[in-house]
Amino acid sequence: MTNIPDQSNGANKRITISVDAMGGDRGPAAVVAGIARAAHKNPQFEFLLFGPEPELRKLVRRRSRLGQKRKLMDCCKIRHVEEVVSMEDKPSQVLRNGKGTSMWAAVDAVRGGEADAVVSCGNTGALMLVSMIRLKKLPGVDRPAIACLWPSRSPGGFNVLLDVGADIRADARNLLQYALMGASYARNGLELSRPRIGLMNVGTEENKGHTEIREAHDLITSAAEDANFEFVGFVEGRDIPSGRVDVIVTDGFTGNIALKTGEGTALLIREFLREAFRATPLSRIAALLAVTSLRRLSKRIDPRRVNGGVFLGLNGTVVKSHGSADAVGVASAIGLACRLAKSRFNERLAARVASFNPGGQDERGGTAEAAGKERER
Amino acid sequence: MTNIPDQSNGANKRITISVDAMGGDRGPAAVVAGIARAAHKNPQFEFLLFGPEPELRKLVRRRSRLGQKRKLMDCCKIRHVEEVVSMEDKPSQVLRNGKGTSMWAAVDAVRGGEADAVVSCGNTGALMLVSMIRLKKLPGVDRPAIACLWPSRSPGGFNVLLDVGADIRADARNLLQYALMGASYARNGLELSRPRIGLMNVGTEENKGHTEIREAHDLITSAAEDANFEFVGFVEGRDIPSGRVDVIVTDGFTGNIALKTGEGTALLIREFLREAFRATPLSRIAALLAVTSLRRLSKRIDPRRVNGGVFLGLNGTVVKSHGSADAVGVASAIGLACRLAKSRFNERLAARVASFNPGGQDERGGTAEAAGKERER
Repeated sequence: MTNIPDQSNGANKRITISVDAMGGDRGPAAVVAGIARAAHKNPQFEFLLFGPEPELRKLVRRRSRLGQKRKLMDCCKIRHVEEVVSMEDKPSQVLRNGKGTSMWAAVDAVRGGEADAVVSCGNTGALMLVSMIRLKKLPGVDRPAIACLWPSRSPGGFNVLLDVGADIRADARNLLQYALMGASYARNGLELSRPRIGLMNVGTEENKGHTEIREAHDLITSAAEDANFEFVGFVEGRDIPSGRVDVIVTDGFTGNIALKTGEGTALLIREFLREAFRATPLSRIAALLAVTSLRRLSKRIDPRRVNGGVFLGLNGTVVKSHGSADAVGVASAIGLACRLAKSRFNERLAARVASFNPGGQDERGGTAEAAGKERER
Repeated sequence: MTNIPDQSNGANKRITISVDAMGGDRGPAAVVAGIARAAHKNPQFEFLLFGPEPELRKLVRRRSRLGQKRKLMDCCKIRHVEEVVSMEDKPSQVLRNGKGTSMWAAVDAVRGGEADAVVSCGNTGALMLVSMIRLKKLPGVDRPAIACLWPSRSPGGFNVLLDVGADIRADARNLLQYALMGASYARNGLELSRPRIGLMNVGTEENKGHTEIREAHDLITSAAEDANFEFVGFVEGRDIPSGRVDVIVTDGFTGNIALKTGEGTALLIREFLREAFRATPLSRIAALLAVTSLRRLSKRIDPRRVNGGVFLGLNGTVVKSHGSADAVGVASAIGLACRLAKSRFNERLAARVASFNPGGQDERGGTAEAAGKERER
């Protein structure tokens, strides 16, 4: 994916990404290794790292000695936090006792304006709850959503799918908001001036599906012109990686299962492919000859490269990395956070949603004036 | 997939498959070509072909001249029917005016006992409705389901996913019935004595998901021992192609989207693979060297090879082939119908479900005595 040109007003201001170093399945070593990769590719960024200071300092020092041009220590500040949200913690527990955790502190850095975006590999439910409580929902948003990128035949190489698991239910109004937020994400994250939106269903005929989906179809149809997107109507599971749509809107239950089904299928085929090239001596030679092409293919279908679900609909950019992400995966998630922070995506999203919902319910949202200014994205 | 040993009592009775020749996207030529392939592999079967006689006769004659050992004309009877259910016909229209169509007549052949199973490439909604009306539901079944096979890491190479689109909603009781029917299908279609059943959800923790899914979890847990399957609990989208489960149970909305997402992903990767091997002269040579392994891989991930959704829960075996199926796809669907007819799968399924629901609501179902006899499958 190409980088987005810097469109911020204060172009000289350093952009800071806050990172929850703990809570991923592979521990802080994978996170620090991921930051090192991301820092190398994004020299204009700074990182705020939250977790137990002694452990993190050691990991950052070790990375700094690895001979990279830019020393990780120079762009990475560590903030000591003792506690960690584990994968087993229930969101309600985190709500009560989460204040001293690295996740909470990393999100608070965005709330306080110290950081422009936050990345965490931790427990999704807990991260969503902490983000909702600390950052609050944008005016006009009933339910935030998680959006992910999906390798596709579209010109940019990716489509957007949302919601992939913020909430297991969505009514027609929620689905309309997902369409608005997804369009804004595609505009800023994929540089599409007029994204094509599709609504996921079990068929493309207008009489198919649940009542709420048919209602959402009508709502999104009416909103398309004002919101400057093209509504292609119902799409099916097989359209998610297709070139006929840029953003696929669905509820969090269906989206989550589609996402994981796609990942599972891609992993199975990668395995089959590996077996196929080990099957005979000739195929082993073939694998050597085609090594560059195969590596490129492997990259194209590697779920780690599109790691990073973005929470849409909050006062701040939150990127959720896969719990099992390794350095490559964490670096993708951080790279995504950098791109979004740089394009001031969240302000634009806020303005877009606000313009469809005059008079928000939230005290931290953008003003009508800001909405007017930002209408163009 | 291996063939199932012949376990029927009347081993010498010819098994007949009724085929709706019309309604597929590629017309009757693809269907007749598919029958020719299937007939070649399944010499003990007979076929009843429904559609416009002059057109079908020409197609069957042409196939008979193709030098195959077994002449298609010898094992294929044509039944003249004028009308066709199109992909655009609404199920309600078919209900009113469908009597003279090839779909209706092909299903009726099973109802009348002339055929042991029916295959159609037509409109899914219409086929389900015609099947429900003509064959009726099995005693104890509230909602029939469509089950499909999914390439997987399980020893047999396939997992079963249901429902993939018979009904967009399912409550806890329906999901339990899907588990029972899926277990029976895995036992007879995949020869697994004690299938492992998983319930699809957005996480594997017991507190996740909709209320009806959590209720279904409890119902299936209680039924597992009596029904002789292992319940592995909640599974996620990525488990569909995994080796930790044999049957994945879900509602028809989610299942349909998962199925099509998997197909879409597999097709995208096949395309990427083709591009990768055309990328450089070296990779083109590699493709030549690895041609056998690549062909095998391509077969393993070819959705056509697992073509054929089985309608479970009716008084008769109905196999729905993909609307766009070509000869290979149609032949797979017919092959599946042959295997299921041969193993007397539907009687066993009926007995299994009846044993969980004494006193069915349907006059055409199996008796308690039959249930007792068939309990073992």
